[in-house]
Amino acid sequence: MTAEMTLTEAAGNTGDGRADLRLKELHASLSDPGLDSMNFLNEITFRYPEAISFAPGRPYDGFFEVEQIFAGVRAYIDHLAASGRTTAQVKSELFQYGPAAGQIREVIADWLRKDERIDVPAASIVVTVGCQEAMVLALRALVRGPQDSVLVSSPCYVGITGAARLLDIEPVAVPERKDGFHAEDLARAVRAERARGRTPRAFYVVPDHTNPSGTTMTLEARQELLELAGRLDVLILEDSPYRLVSPGSRLPTLKALDTSRRVVHLGSFSKTLFPGARVGFAIADQTVETGDPGRTGLLADELAKIKSMITVNTSPLSQAAVAGMLLAAGGRASELNTETSAYYGDAMRHTLERLDAAFPAERRERLGLRWNRPSGGFFMAVTVPFLADNAALARSAERYGVLWTPMSYFYPDSGGERAIRLSISYLSHQEIAEGVDRLARFIEAEAAATS
Amino acid sequence: MTAEMTLTEAAGNTGDGRADLRLKELHASLSDPGLDSMNFLNEITFRYPEAISFAPGRPYDGFFEVEQIFAGVRAYIDHLAASGRTTAQVKSELFQYGPAAGQIREVIADWLRKDERIDVPAASIVVTVGCQEAMVLALRALVRGPQDSVLVSSPCYVGITGAARLLDIEPVAVPERKDGFHAEDLARAVRAERARGRTPRAFYVVPDHTNPSGTTMTLEARQELLELAGRLDVLILEDSPYRLVSPGSRLPTLKALDTSRRVVHLGSFSKTLFPGARVGFAIADQTVETGDPGRTGLLADELAKIKSMITVNTSPLSQAAVAGMLLAAGGRASELNTETSAYYGDAMRHTLERLDAAFPAERRERLGLRWNRPSGGFFMAVTVPFLADNAALARSAERYGVLWTPMSYFYPDSGGERAIRLSISYLSHQEIAEGVDRLARFIEAEAAATS
Repeated sequence: MTAEMTLTEAAGNTGDGRADLRLKELHASLSDPGLDSMNFLNEITFRYPEAISFAPGRPYDGFFEVEQIFAGVRAYIDHLAASGRTTAQVKSELFQYGPAAGQIREVIADWLRKDERIDVPAASIVVTVGCQEAMVLALRALVRGPQDSVLVSSPCYVGITGAARLLDIEPVAVPERKDGFHAEDLARAVRAERARGRTPRAFYVVPDHTNPSGTTMTLEARQELLELAGRLDVLILEDSPYRLVSPGSRLPTLKALDTSRRVVHLGSFSKTLFPGARVGFAIADQTVETGDPGRTGLLADELAKIKSMITVNTSPLSQAAVAGMLLAAGGRASELNTETSAYYGDAMRHTLERLDAAFPAERRERLGLRWNRPSGGFFMAVTVPFLADNAALARSAERYGVLWTPMSYFYPDSGGERAIRLSISYLSHQEIAEGVDRLARFIEAEAAATS
Repeated sequence: MTAEMTLTEAAGNTGDGRADLRLKELHASLSDPGLDSMNFLNEITFRYPEAISFAPGRPYDGFFEVEQIFAGVRAYIDHLAASGRTTAQVKSELFQYGPAAGQIREVIADWLRKDERIDVPAASIVVTVGCQEAMVLALRALVRGPQDSVLVSSPCYVGITGAARLLDIEPVAVPERKDGFHAEDLARAVRAERARGRTPRAFYVVPDHTNPSGTTMTLEARQELLELAGRLDVLILEDSPYRLVSPGSRLPTLKALDTSRRVVHLGSFSKTLFPGARVGFAIADQTVETGDPGRTGLLADELAKIKSMITVNTSPLSQAAVAGMLLAAGGRASELNTETSAYYGDAMRHTLERLDAAFPAERRERLGLRWNRPSGGFFMAVTVPFLADNAALARSAERYGVLWTPMSYFYPDSGGERAIRLSISYLSHQEIAEGVDRLARFIEAEAAATS
C-alpha cells in the first residue's frame, strides 16, 4: 500500500461495509495489552451482571451523599469570601479558566502538612485531572526519548503503564517478591539498563497497600530505597492512593522521608474524597535550571506547562468541591475517612476469615493455594494452582457467578499467570461471604481439572 | 557527560544553589515557543495590572451567576431521576468513576441535532476535559510516527500546536490569506508533504471566526474543502468554539456538511457555557477495522481508549453541570447565548467604530495600517507598520497602558511579525473606547519611530 492510499478506503463508502480507517492505520500503541485486558474484564462484567465482583477498584459509595458535593463547593466559596475575594472574583474563580497549576494548592499543601507531615511549598504542587494526568506529566517531563527508561515495581497499576505507552515509553519491570519490593532488585535493574546504554530516569512504586498485590513497604525498605535512589541517581515516582482509606497507623510516605528531593509524589483524592471529582496532584519540588543562566525554577512549573498542552487546567468546579470538603474537615482528609477506613479494614478481615474457613491450612497447602494478608487497602493477591487467564475468568463468571482480575493484567512483561487480584472495597459483608464461597467452589473445580 | 551522571547534581545539594535537574535534561519540547510567548504575555499582564488588555480569549463573565452551576447539577440529577435512576444510581453517576467516553453523550448528541443540525449517534461522541484533550486524542490516534504529518491553517490556535508538540509532532503550516483559507493552498501543502515522503493525516481548521485572525470560511470554501479532503485523502479536524457566541445567522459546520465521514469535529463548552467546567468533546464517527476480521468499531472508541490513559474520564460533576444547563434550556445552547452573542457582537462593532474614528481611511492608508471586520467571534487582526514583537508589547504596556497579542505567537513557522490580535470578548464598552484610544497613541508613536 502506498502512502497515497492511506485513507482511500474512506472516500464515500458509507454503505458498503468497509471501514473508513483500518486499525493498523491508527497509532500502533492503541492496542495496549493492559487496556485490552481491562476491556475483556468490562465485557465479562457486563455479560454477567448478577455475578459478585472482586474486580473493580472503586471506593465503596454507601457513605456518599449528593449534598456533600454542594456543601463542598459552598464551603470553598465561603472560604474565598472570607479570604477577602469580591463576588466578582469568586465567580471568576469558579467559572473562568484558571492557572494551569491549579487554584487550590494552598489547601492541598495545608492538608499534606496536617495529614501526611509532608511540608512543601504550595508552588511545588500541580493540581491534575486525577492521578492519571499527574503520571503523564511526570513521564513526559522526565523521559527525553528512547535513550531514557522508566522502571516500575511489577506487578503494577495499569495506569502507569498506560501513561507510558501513551508516550511511547516501554516500562521496565522490577519484579516484586512475595513480601514486596526489595531495593537490590531495583539496583540490578538500573545496572542492566545502563549496560544497555539507557538512562533510567525514574522508578514508579506504590509503597502502601499497592495495587494489585496489596503489599506495603516497611520503614527500613523505604529508607533503603531513598538512599539507593540517591546513589543510583534516579527519581522516585511515589503513588499512594490507599493510605488514608486504610485502618491503623501509617508509615511515613517516601516524600515525608525525602530530604534531598528525590521523590516526585503523585496524589489522588479519588479514594479519600470521591472519584467523580477527577482531582489529583503532583508534588514536584525539584529545582530545575531555566534558560536564564543562574536562575532556577521548580519542576512543578515544567509539569504545569505540559499540563497546559493536555487539559489547560483542572476544572475549577471540581477543585472547589475537593478544597471545600478538605476545608470543612479542618484540612484533614483523614477525619473524613475514619468511617470508610474502618469499613475497608473490616471488609479485608472478613475476606481473609472467609478464605481461611473455606481453605483450612492443610487443604490450602495440598492445593498449593496461598494469599497475603494486607492490613488495609483495596486489594489482596491469591496464588492459585491453575492458569488464571481470561478463559478461567469466563468460566468463573459463567459457572460460579464470581469475578476477579487475572494478576497477569498487571505485569508489564509476563508473570502472574497463576495468581488473581481480589478487590474488597466495593462489596458488602454479605456479598463477600457469598463471593468467597463461590470463589472457593471455582478454585476447587479448577484445581481438580488441572491435577 | 556520561549517562551515569544524568541526575548527579541532585544528590543532597539542597543548600548550595545548584539545581536538582538541568532543564536540558527534561524533554526538549518543554521549551515550546508558543508557550514561552504566552508566559511572557502573562508576565506582562501581571506586571501592568492597570493596563487595558485586548489579550485574553476569555468569555465575558458578567452574565455568570454562581447559582447557575448548582441549578445545572440539580437539573441533571432531576433528569437522571426522571429517566428512572434510583437514588443509589444517581449517587454513583456523580461520585464514582464513569465511562472513559463520558456519560452525557446523549445530551450532547441531542444538542448537536437541535443547534447545529449535526446528526450523529451518541456512541460517536467522546466527552473530553475541554477541547484541548480532544485535540490530543485525535492527534495521538491519527499520527503513527515521524512519517505522518498534521497540517494546520496558519496562523492558528496555540492549543493545537501545543498538543502536537506534546506528542512530538511538528505541525505543517498552511498559510491563510488576507481573506482566510484557500483550498488550493492545502492541496499544495499536501503535495509538498507527499513529495517529502510523508503522509498528511489531518488538517486542523477553525471555520468560524477563527482564533487568532477572526476570519470565517464561506459556504463555498467549506464545500470545496470537504471535496478536496476526500480527493486528497486527509481527515479534517474541525474546531469551532465561537459559533454560538456570535450574532447573526451561522453557516453550517463542516461536520454538518460531511456526508462521507471526513470530519472529526472538536467541540467546546468553554465559550457557550463556562470554561471552569472543562468540558469539551470530539465527534469521531469514522468506522475503524478492529482486530476481529469483518468487525468494525468507531474511531470514538479508540479515542476513549487513549483518554483512559490520560485522564481516565471527564469529571462526572462537570459533565452534570454542563448537561444540566443544556437540559434546562431545552437542549439549546444557542438560547443560553442570545444575550452573550449580542454582547460580543456589540463589542466587536464598537471596537471597529473606535478604530475607524481613531484612524480615518486616509490616515490608515498613509500609515499602512489595516484590519479585518469580523461579524462575530472574539478576535480581529490588525496589520501594523512596525515590528509587533515582545519588546513592542512591553513598550505598549509600560507607556500606553494597553495590551494585545503579537500575531507572531500564532505562526507555527514564522510570520505575523507586523500584526496584532485584538480580543474584544472580555472588555466593557468603556474599556474598549479607552483601550482603542491608548492603542491608537501607541500605534502612532511606533509608526513615527519606525519611519
